[in-house]
Amino acid sequence: MTPEERLSQLGITLPEPPKAVAAYVPWIRTGNLVITSGQLPFRDGRIAYAGKLGVELTDDEGYQAARLCAVNAIAQLKAAAGELSRVRQILRLEGYVHSGPGYQNQPKVLNGASELFGDVFGERGRHTRSALGINEMPLNAAVQLSVWAELTE
Amino acid sequence: MTPEERLSQLGITLPEPPKAVAAYVPWIRTGNLVITSGQLPFRDGRIAYAGKLGVELTDDEGYQAARLCAVNAIAQLKAAAGELSRVRQILRLEGYVHSGPGYQNQPKVLNGASELFGDVFGERGRHTRSALGINEMPLNAAVQLSVWAELTE
Amino acid sequence: MTPEERLSQLGITLPEPPKAVAAYVPWIRTGNLVITSGQLPFRDGRIAYAGKLGVELTDDEGYQAARLCAVNAIAQLKAAAGELSRVRQILRLEGYVHSGPGYQNQPKVLNGASELFGDVFGERGRHTRSALGINEMPLNAAVQLSVWAELTE
Repeated sequence: MTPEERLSQLGITLPEPPKAVAAYVPWIRTGNLVITSGQLPFRDGRIAYAGKLGVELTDDEGYQAARLCAVNAIAQLKAAAGELSRVRQILRLEGYVHSGPGYQNQPKVLNGASELFGDVFGERGRHTRSALGINEMPLNAAVQLSVWAELTE
Repeated sequence: MTPEERLSQLGITLPEPPKAVAAYVPWIRTGNLVITSGQLPFRDGRIAYAGKLGVELTDDEGYQAARLCAVNAIAQLKAAAGELSRVRQILRLEGYVHSGPGYQNQPKVLNGASELFGDVFGERGRHTRSALGINEMPLNAAVQLSVWAELTE
Repeated sequence: MTPEERLSQLGITLPEPPKAVAAYVPWIRTGNLVITSGQLPFRDGRIAYAGKLGVELTDDEGYQAARLCAVNAIAQLKAAAGELSRVRQILRLEGYVHSGPGYQNQPKVLNGASELFGDVFGERGRHTRSALGINEMPLNAAVQLSVWAELTE
């Protein structure tokens, strides 16, 4: 099964990859390496999950926010690679969780992204990860996620 | 026009690249990849923009701080590359904005860096970016910026 | 002297590399590049340094926490490389310090990691670095550290 078929089986339709609105690009390629800009939980042009974890949002909403960031990142990877089967390995997720005082479940939230990469890419979706809590986020988004991936030649 | 000529046209003189004061180096090269350490808004050996956005500093001061970080990063890239025309592509800006409660204009602030890279490097300056708000910063600096770039062979 | 011999001289026994507990891997290799997941100050399966710098923890405790993160990262690099003499260069430390209000000594804390890399790897341990203060951290850990390194062919 291709990653596109797995997405379809999961009921996920890739969006038009969110465009960066400022003086930068949504993804870049150097050699076989693709890097995305920080992805936010956009859906239909709006931030679907806004606020801080542990204040306005529950762990499960955070998980869904991270999953949505991952869907948007996969859309960027598809734009970069043409076909997702050309993704040889997801290398790294850099995950930032908008966190209220004392909130420590950043890893649980980011599993919403990590597990989707596993479901869609199988072994090729197993990545390294950093999980940080930050106090303020552009557009008040719940999560921001950057992805590094290796493409086949 | 070379990047050095564009800098000159913008009235920017590259400083002596700020030295890292601790047990690390200001830039490193591996293959064609150059990575800088986190750059702070140093000018003449002093932090020119200190404090939090949305508390002590305005959006425009933040923009100027990010631009100054970018000037310092370009000085590091020149030290690494010899001539800036050997920079094939700016790959990534990792931008951290020292943010007070509720501050969400990190992208606007970091455009101070992104737009300078565009002005100086043209298409080669178009990069991916992450934009995060953080609560505390070394030396109380307003912005910290790390840059990844690809050099020509 | 090999890095393993230097570790021994420093009285450091590498632990079993801490395993990632979620849907990701502790290190990954692409070409000659190795990237670790964010390392926490685990010792014997427990977080040895919990809390915020400037609130519950002193600068020296933060330094020890960063050093312990570095020990764990070196254990990951050894798992990736087989022998640490196959590490050609430590490229980058991304250091996040769990910081209370007004705390600005993130560089001093992260020297606990930077200096250990210098002691163990000599010139090959000289790296670039980012040093950020963040408000919340998984497991209330004092420090999180990701490491990028280049291996020999």
